[in-house]
Amino acid sequence: MLRSLPLSEVYRLLEPGPVVLLTTAHRGRANVMTLSWHLMMEFDPPLVGCLVSGANHSFTALRKTRECVIALPAAALAPKVVQVGNASGRDLDKFEAFGLTPKPAKRVAAPLVAECFADLECRVADTRFVPKYNFFVLEVVQAWIDPGQRRAKTLHHQGGGTFVLDGPTIRLRSNKP
Amino acid sequence: MLRSLPLSEVYRLLEPGPVVLLTTAHRGRANVMTLSWHLMMEFDPPLVGCLVSGANHSFTALRKTRECVIALPAAALAPKVVQVGNASGRDLDKFEAFGLTPKPAKRVAAPLVAECFADLECRVADTRFVPKYNFFVLEVVQAWIDPGQRRAKTLHHQGGGTFVLDGPTIRLRSNKP
Repeated sequence: MLRSLPLSEVYRLLEPGPVVLLTTAHRGRANVMTLSWHLMMEFDPPLVGCLVSGANHSFTALRKTRECVIALPAAALAPKVVQVGNASGRDLDKFEAFGLTPKPAKRVAAPLVAECFADLECRVADTRFVPKYNFFVLEVVQAWIDPGQRRAKTLHHQGGGTFVLDGPTIRLRSNKP
Repeated sequence: MLRSLPLSEVYRLLEPGPVVLLTTAHRGRANVMTLSWHLMMEFDPPLVGCLVSGANHSFTALRKTRECVIALPAAALAPKVVQVGNASGRDLDKFEAFGLTPKPAKRVAAPLVAECFADLECRVADTRFVPKYNFFVLEVVQAWIDPGQRRAKTLHHQGGGTFVLDGPTIRLRSNKP
């Protein structure tokens, strides 16, 4: 059962730079892609910048529907994450092909991913940098976390299919959020 | 001794989402700040987007000089990284205060950081999103790597002084760069 996560805590999920899944729904079809080129841009309401290449099938869906879900996979999902990244939604239903389960979101048509430990429902907030950089500014309008997957370890892509997994956590006295 | 890193490999350093240091030089003074809100935007020449708040002393230096260095600290530098993040260059010379060593760069006035395992010399390529988001697009014009710190483990900030360190590395069959 997912729990609603305060929007002010979303940055804690994305700031560490995990590989994420991005889902869209367009013309009655859901799709999912992998994404590592993203950054936080504002705390609350949370703004997220991400780069979705025009070569991706999701690009058109994102531009037309102006909605998506960013879903965070734990490290155990790494093989599926790579399968999603290797395939195109042009050719197949990646949810079905790779055993991922789309779940209805609350505020957008794009689906949550049941296997992920967090889901961020997003609306496109700014497209002015899309023509030059394929860079979308998203606003997170609803966030979910799975209390059953506490302290999930995430994946970080180092290029060419090499991923570093989260290791130990340390705490230091920071005066920053 | 630093080795020049091909620009086409820069994304492998930043895509995993490490905490980085950003240095500037303005009016004869070098400064350094911590940064986690960054993303890759293009492979080669590498473009990097980053968000530097107007509250940071580095903001003015970056806007006026249009140059900076992104330096990558390994996990052992975590205490210094946090000290840098807790202080402002308005008040003190953070290099001297926290025992970091500025080194001349090749193509920009901002310094490299001798203790870091990689340094990316950057020029500001686009400031159109600065007024609204404090978002700078940087082009990496020269990259350096320290062969003496191979396979450095990096830091990822989870908010509030909690950092996750790089753990194990896995390789999967990806058809993506």
